[in-house]
Amino acid sequence: MSTDKPNKLKARLPRGLADRGPAEIAATRRMLETIRRVFERYGFEPVETPQIEYTDALGKFLPDQDRPNEGVFSFQDDDEQWLSLRYDLTAPLARYVAENFDALPKPYRSYRFGYVYRNEKPGPGRFRQFMQFDADTVGASSPAADAEMCMMMADTLERVGIRRGDYVVKVNNRKVLDGILDQVDLGGDENAGRRMMVLRAIDKRDRLGAKGVKALLGPGRIDDSGDRTPGALLRPSAVNRIMDYVDAWTELQSPKKAEAGRPMNDMDVGEGYFRDNYAIVRRLRSIVGSSTLGNDGLDELETIVSLVESSGYGSRRIQIDPSVVRGLEYYTGPVYEAELTFEVTNDDGQPVRFGSVGGGGRYDGLVGRFRDEPVPATGFSIGVSRLLAALKAVDSPIVTSAEKPGPVVVLVMDRDRIADYQAMTARLREAGVRAELYLGAAGLKAQMKYADRRQSPCAVIQGSNEKAEGKVQIKDLRLGAEIAQGGRDRADYLHKQAEAQFSVDEGELVEAVRRVLARYSA
Amino acid sequence: MSTDKPNKLKARLPRGLADRGPAEIAATRRMLETIRRVFERYGFEPVETPQIEYTDALGKFLPDQDRPNEGVFSFQDDDEQWLSLRYDLTAPLARYVAENFDALPKPYRSYRFGYVYRNEKPGPGRFRQFMQFDADTVGASSPAADAEMCMMMADTLERVGIRRGDYVVKVNNRKVLDGILDQVDLGGDENAGRRMMVLRAIDKRDRLGAKGVKALLGPGRIDDSGDRTPGALLRPSAVNRIMDYVDAWTELQSPKKAEAGRPMNDMDVGEGYFRDNYAIVRRLRSIVGSSTLGNDGLDELETIVSLVESSGYGSRRIQIDPSVVRGLEYYTGPVYEAELTFEVTNDDGQPVRFGSVGGGGRYDGLVGRFRDEPVPATGFSIGVSRLLAALKAVDSPIVTSAEKPGPVVVLVMDRDRIADYQAMTARLREAGVRAELYLGAAGLKAQMKYADRRQSPCAVIQGSNEKAEGKVQIKDLRLGAEIAQGGRDRADYLHKQAEAQFSVDEGELVEAVRRVLARYSA
Repeated sequence: MSTDKPNKLKARLPRGLADRGPAEIAATRRMLETIRRVFERYGFEPVETPQIEYTDALGKFLPDQDRPNEGVFSFQDDDEQWLSLRYDLTAPLARYVAENFDALPKPYRSYRFGYVYRNEKPGPGRFRQFMQFDADTVGASSPAADAEMCMMMADTLERVGIRRGDYVVKVNNRKVLDGILDQVDLGGDENAGRRMMVLRAIDKRDRLGAKGVKALLGPGRIDDSGDRTPGALLRPSAVNRIMDYVDAWTELQSPKKAEAGRPMNDMDVGEGYFRDNYAIVRRLRSIVGSSTLGNDGLDELETIVSLVESSGYGSRRIQIDPSVVRGLEYYTGPVYEAELTFEVTNDDGQPVRFGSVGGGGRYDGLVGRFRDEPVPATGFSIGVSRLLAALKAVDSPIVTSAEKPGPVVVLVMDRDRIADYQAMTARLREAGVRAELYLGAAGLKAQMKYADRRQSPCAVIQGSNEKAEGKVQIKDLRLGAEIAQGGRDRADYLHKQAEAQFSVDEGELVEAVRRVLARYSA
Repeated sequence: MSTDKPNKLKARLPRGLADRGPAEIAATRRMLETIRRVFERYGFEPVETPQIEYTDALGKFLPDQDRPNEGVFSFQDDDEQWLSLRYDLTAPLARYVAENFDALPKPYRSYRFGYVYRNEKPGPGRFRQFMQFDADTVGASSPAADAEMCMMMADTLERVGIRRGDYVVKVNNRKVLDGILDQVDLGGDENAGRRMMVLRAIDKRDRLGAKGVKALLGPGRIDDSGDRTPGALLRPSAVNRIMDYVDAWTELQSPKKAEAGRPMNDMDVGEGYFRDNYAIVRRLRSIVGSSTLGNDGLDELETIVSLVESSGYGSRRIQIDPSVVRGLEYYTGPVYEAELTFEVTNDDGQPVRFGSVGGGGRYDGLVGRFRDEPVPATGFSIGVSRLLAALKAVDSPIVTSAEKPGPVVVLVMDRDRIADYQAMTARLREAGVRAELYLGAAGLKAQMKYADRRQSPCAVIQGSNEKAEGKVQIKDLRLGAEIAQGGRDRADYLHKQAEAQFSVDEGELVEAVRRVLARYSA
């Protein structure tokens, strides 16, 4: 061992990684359990893949793919093949489905949650290891599969404690935008790079506003700090065409706001506006014009609208929004995003909309990378920590619901009799009571302090006097703390004191402890 | 996308990694939940650390540390510092405790589960990613902390479904062996390497028998395939001294068996023998002689024995066994191992003892790597897949307890009316029924086959005739399958057939489905 080394190691975590304590673990567990139940009710079944895959099986679909390390953690195997930590749960699912294709029922509905890893510069709320919870339907080309994803997302949000009206699931279709891009001569493989630039520009609509997006589509943008982001260099007519599309929804709902050139919030829009998914589709038809691809995409959106409306998920919950594009390259059809619309205060003290907690879309080509026939698929991903942060913001019962009290602590009064104390602890545990023997070397006062720190409801004490009489003392630590606060009259004080610490026969230990615990179980 | 690429990627997992399906995931979840409840009853609280740590923070404590890649997966960060995937949950806990020392209650009891990674040659039952479930008490030097670990392990095994008598928690103390090694001139830093060779030789006692261990302590060993393992080259008197110690337990219990030179099973030993932990300690005293370190170790073992005996965990459950040493270098005192004693059939059709499902020990130096003061600690680790395999072998209710039935499937009879079918599905889900809309493109026959494959209890059918009458058909798929088997008389057949498929008003859909589900909820 290196205990006597002169230079001690520094105990520290690498950047972008975090430890988690009991409260967060318990809240996360309850949240995952709730999500799981919703997904199972929709007929989805669990599947789990490992954290490590062949690098080529994962592919390169991350938004930051042009960075030198490509955003993933990679290492070489003994046989020189490259392995990577997964960066999402979709690419591994595609590998899984392709590898087990014949054994799976089709359509194949599955869900999974687990950590994913990004080799990126970490920042506030941006981690290099974080958890996702995904659901996917593979082998269904019908827009009904996409509609179901949107409804399941809405149900999930409500079930974990987000109120109806505090969220919206926004839906769009990549085909519609692709149709428009075709029309402005950005079709074909040779324009794939510029198309991605357009997508990423639109994806920043919420943050940069219409003006910012316009700049990114054209000559580029210089931000407040003077940094320059290069633009897609489209000609002005193409930029206008795309902006018409992106802002179709805004213009339709509230022309005045759109003119002001700032991004519009759902909150700006009155109740009535939400009920018009069909009107948005009609407006988009006029923009798309004669594009076959664009009209196919709108047909799919129209089917989705009819399905969600007929199942009672109107536009107040699920909403067509042409500004939703999603950053990942592999989407091929409908894309969707779950946004929380309530305001929270950001680090600068400004009220901001909470924003996205998850999203997804159709990725018909991903399984096909491994197989000769195309395999349609659609799915979404929930950002687990992001959603948990939202539940904290709205005081969801998942976060606030009382945790179990701390353990009963059996104190060590006489070090030679530790076997007796251990036996008492074992008796309590056997009776189902959460209990522990004090295992440190400190005296009585420090032991009491330890019990407080552990939020123990009560302590069990047996000194030599009690032992001689076959008795054991039970100390109610909460009542004790209350008494120490003072106040009340003397009769009340004496009554409380009698309840706060009392002596029972050894044989009645379990029953007496249970009596104290019963005082605090609501 | 790359759907039209001529050379398709092969969908495959790297060696030593595995996917998991619904049954294994559900059984694992139930098992983890049960373990968690036992640990919480003992006053332990959860903590979670990330999968990635600085390589130097993890240290090099793996048995295979002399391999070139040191048994871990490593990669460099942007700033050139080395990161590794954790290879166990103990080293990260030491880092966590050192980093948060002042904020934690002491003694600090915590538990955690998660994946660990070994960059090793995979083999049958040996994976490169596997799950461990750990509990540790940091800041308690008392053997009471070790005794508690052993009792908690015993409780855990019983709670997940291993019967008393089918397991034993074996306890030893590294100090006792270190005392003997001192006496045969293997003390001091300069002999650290040879001491590890001795430990690893003893660790193979179960597999190789006394003769094999003896060879490894001396000149080395040639196995059945002719491969040679180098020995520790101890002189014969030292080898005999160590073998005396290792076999103390065996000799004490059953001299005849020990002579036969094969490793003894607990099963060879009658009930009476188990009740003699104190006798084993006495026997070890005579072997250890005057070694202070050895006698300190035996004092600790004696305390552990008195604690577990007084709490009702006699030697039938927790047992002193000098052949237990544990392969990891960082242990400094008591070590323990949970062994399942029942027999299973191995790949060659031979009955073998199930063996170890977990273990641990005291590692007083590990947190001290980061801090100036020493920090005592003890803990154990359960091999999650190994324990799950054991639960399968004993038909534990955790594995066998019935899973929920599959989802109700709403069939698509008329593609134009998919919105209606979706709405029916939504109604069922809203009522808490697990239900799904058929999302594929196939005809009725294939849809029924799909429902069977999903183990659906019933299907919901509404063709144009039913729709015209405001009716919906409910088909009980299990009863349907039973009828298809044939047999029984005609009256019975007609009665069953009426129950197996019936028509109800649309408004009664939920109630009718519930009626069918009730037939199968035991």
